[in-house]
Amino acid sequence: MTDVAQRRRSRGTGGGAARRAERTAVNVEVARFITRNIPNFEVLTEEAIEVIEYNAETVLEEIGVVFANNPAALDRWRDAGADVDGDRVRIPRGLARKLCATAPSTFTQHARNSDRNVEIGGKNLVLAPVYGPPFVRDIDGGRRYATIEDFRKFVKLGHMSKWLHHSGGTVCEPTDVPVNKRHLDMLLAHMTLTDKPFMGSVTEPSRAQDSVDMCSILFGEDFVQQNTVMTSLININSPLTFDDVMMGALEVYAKNNQACIVSPFIVGGAMAPVSVAGTLTQVLAETLAGVAYSQLIRAGAPVIMGAFVTSIDMNSGAPTFGTPEASQITYGAGQLARRLGLPYRSAGGFCGSKLPDAQAGYESANSLNMGLLSGVNFMLHSCGWLEGGLVSSFEKFVMDADQLGALHHMAKGVSIDENAQAMDAIREVGPGGHFLGCDHTQRNFKEAFWRSNLLDYKPFEQWSEEGGRDTVTLAAEKVQHMLNTYQPPALDVAIAENLAAYVEQKKASMPDAFA
Amino acid sequence: MTDVAQRRRSRGTGGGAARRAERTAVNVEVARFITRNIPNFEVLTEEAIEVIEYNAETVLEEIGVVFANNPAALDRWRDAGADVDGDRVRIPRGLARKLCATAPSTFTQHARNSDRNVEIGGKNLVLAPVYGPPFVRDIDGGRRYATIEDFRKFVKLGHMSKWLHHSGGTVCEPTDVPVNKRHLDMLLAHMTLTDKPFMGSVTEPSRAQDSVDMCSILFGEDFVQQNTVMTSLININSPLTFDDVMMGALEVYAKNNQACIVSPFIVGGAMAPVSVAGTLTQVLAETLAGVAYSQLIRAGAPVIMGAFVTSIDMNSGAPTFGTPEASQITYGAGQLARRLGLPYRSAGGFCGSKLPDAQAGYESANSLNMGLLSGVNFMLHSCGWLEGGLVSSFEKFVMDADQLGALHHMAKGVSIDENAQAMDAIREVGPGGHFLGCDHTQRNFKEAFWRSNLLDYKPFEQWSEEGGRDTVTLAAEKVQHMLNTYQPPALDVAIAENLAAYVEQKKASMPDAFA
Repeated sequence: MTDVAQRRRSRGTGGGAARRAERTAVNVEVARFITRNIPNFEVLTEEAIEVIEYNAETVLEEIGVVFANNPAALDRWRDAGADVDGDRVRIPRGLARKLCATAPSTFTQHARNSDRNVEIGGKNLVLAPVYGPPFVRDIDGGRRYATIEDFRKFVKLGHMSKWLHHSGGTVCEPTDVPVNKRHLDMLLAHMTLTDKPFMGSVTEPSRAQDSVDMCSILFGEDFVQQNTVMTSLININSPLTFDDVMMGALEVYAKNNQACIVSPFIVGGAMAPVSVAGTLTQVLAETLAGVAYSQLIRAGAPVIMGAFVTSIDMNSGAPTFGTPEASQITYGAGQLARRLGLPYRSAGGFCGSKLPDAQAGYESANSLNMGLLSGVNFMLHSCGWLEGGLVSSFEKFVMDADQLGALHHMAKGVSIDENAQAMDAIREVGPGGHFLGCDHTQRNFKEAFWRSNLLDYKPFEQWSEEGGRDTVTLAAEKVQHMLNTYQPPALDVAIAENLAAYVEQKKASMPDAFA
Repeated sequence: MTDVAQRRRSRGTGGGAARRAERTAVNVEVARFITRNIPNFEVLTEEAIEVIEYNAETVLEEIGVVFANNPAALDRWRDAGADVDGDRVRIPRGLARKLCATAPSTFTQHARNSDRNVEIGGKNLVLAPVYGPPFVRDIDGGRRYATIEDFRKFVKLGHMSKWLHHSGGTVCEPTDVPVNKRHLDMLLAHMTLTDKPFMGSVTEPSRAQDSVDMCSILFGEDFVQQNTVMTSLININSPLTFDDVMMGALEVYAKNNQACIVSPFIVGGAMAPVSVAGTLTQVLAETLAGVAYSQLIRAGAPVIMGAFVTSIDMNSGAPTFGTPEASQITYGAGQLARRLGLPYRSAGGFCGSKLPDAQAGYESANSLNMGLLSGVNFMLHSCGWLEGGLVSSFEKFVMDADQLGALHHMAKGVSIDENAQAMDAIREVGPGGHFLGCDHTQRNFKEAFWRSNLLDYKPFEQWSEEGGRDTVTLAAEKVQHMLNTYQPPALDVAIAENLAAYVEQKKASMPDAFA
């Protein structure tokens, strides 16, 4: 794998723990994050962009946004020149965009294994797994509430997935652990079971602080102060509302120079207007305000403009995924993000299906393709998402993760060097021949075409004799094989002990809470 | 459905039979063919295009193409200025491109119901079903050889599919009918069971002539001579070989001003070099020669530049579908076709899966999306394709046909009229509200978002109580419902009798042949 080799040669700097870990790590082949060599697909005309940008500023100026239960935020906005009335913040035309200018257009998120560092922004695409589902599903156990053991399994699968660059955050909700202690077990899993980068907790400012403190143990305190080691998900309460819990977490992260995704969470028709242009206007207004606020906390703090947007089925009220309007919004929001010079988070392996069946395949492929072509820089939910995000599916995790390989190859673009032109091959074979044995094919076939490591390519007879397995069955076998052969990446023993001690001490300091 | 209403208002001209049919036709809602209001996605740089175009001319000039067993074709090429050596035709640089210039950039294919006429070329996309499989599959009967009764069922399903514009050709091979008589039964089915446009036979020149003759009965002889009423599929024997059977059929069609798709059939690595640029070079050389030849038969005859291209799995030798290299070739070939000013045929709902499962969903969605974004004008195989084209699947037919609706909505692009801007809605709802009940939503929700008529959007509990059906099960139920409620479009009784008599007389004139 050339990408991997290249990555190893151009090794960045890392913490002491990272360097120690590398020396003994079990080798898992992981692809370098994607750097696109293909253009972005753009659905908005210049005129459409200008209308939407103008309207978004009108929304901020005229209607404003709410920063709820957050007097300090209101003070910051007042000082910055906004018109604050109660908890409503009206932002003069141009101010938010000006504040956003200090946010970096690209940044490095460090992993404890520096080979796994990711560059977020520019032409890059970093792939992270599903986030948030309270349920899990697998072929044997069906649908059930997620546990911390499920969580650990997903982190292990993520660690072993070649095309996945990031371990993510809440890969499922470990509902068997008290709400106020979950984040500790989740962080510990990401820190010990994989050496890929990960996300911090956002469900309380104190849990964001725990995330920073545990990272200080893992990476070293100085390293964390000087580098970004977490990218965390801050949702906006669309429409136009920023709650104190999420903003409190953002404040902790921005202060510590840790990255946040500031992301509207929109089911179009419910949390935004039932039109593409209207939804894009609201997305832009909300992210302008959110990103600007991050820069009021610390100018230069890394931040990603997010857009989690889908459409609604007006018959049932259910969110729908992989739909054309969601694609248009995703393409359009990418154009708006690039105009702001901000990294862009959107898309994922989205589907509404209850099962990892054909519906899941169609909808997820629609979403993954639009993610690649829309210029997304950070793709959360790129694998494992099922049932509108209510379920993390083990089989779907490896099915999507396999498809992510296709995105890598698509992004390479088309080479026209002499070897790729293949004129020698066309001359050698001539009319009526075949290329299977020709020199050019022999030299190139191993790297020429992307090949799934999951899907069925066998002749019908062989496939039939081997039981006629469908995709879910093949995926379930792969899940088992991966979990059976998983080995944790090496970690300095003292660091592992200190992390465990931190978790134990924190847990002991609080009564359990389940809501 | 606005598209349909619009189409009905702007009715084109048609034959007498078409007009008679319309007056009594059972109403089936059919969308107008797609006219894109979105850009094409282009992977080739200007430099890459120039390299490929230069190399394709080198192939034609230096290596040349073979026109096998076809002395008349060799004479035509010699007269046109090519260097003919045995059956090898070497075409001087620039000649083929010059000959292609007389082919129209867009043409109308007429249907017997003029509401169903399609415009092929420009920004349009016409969707046609799967072509060629010897097997069929359904949920109850499994995989088996296709019969004429299966064929008729597919034509009926196509007739009732809202998003399908074209009835196609060999939707499956009716293997229970002698090889030399199949085309008669197939044509009769397309002519009587649907009023959508269709394809002619290409397996013998005489069968192409039968197709023209039967069209003369259906549309009237004068109408056929003055209008294009068939678009037929002429495959090139890649690499660089044009066989006499396919070319004989093309000659019949071009003489009669009927349209052909001139299409390399390439599994990359076997029939073309194992590289994207090399395959594109060969595709361009082959289509330049094939399209040029159609213009030697009759300058101005309608012709489509085709590219059926996929990659090979170098482990098993199986063709693979929905892969990134196939996408790159499809995007690139679209750029080359537009440079030639020719309508472009490619893509489809391609998959290698044996079952209509998640693999089929991923691969088909990958292919359908690339078809929309690559500027394809005529998409054969847009629904029903399974197992690498060996199987026509009843369930997959309706699954794909449903997804074709998403392509229609995606192609509409993003409106920015005042209603779409939705500033009144954002003002009315304000921070923290919801849009479900607001005026703008009430006015727009019915048309705002595409909605699947097949996939599951129900709450988990309801879905579960109703049996937890997967996509294939839902599709099988839809197939049954469609076949149970199918009604044939009205057809003039005399025409129907004349068509049946033609088929009967032709069949009686030949002994059965099964190979």
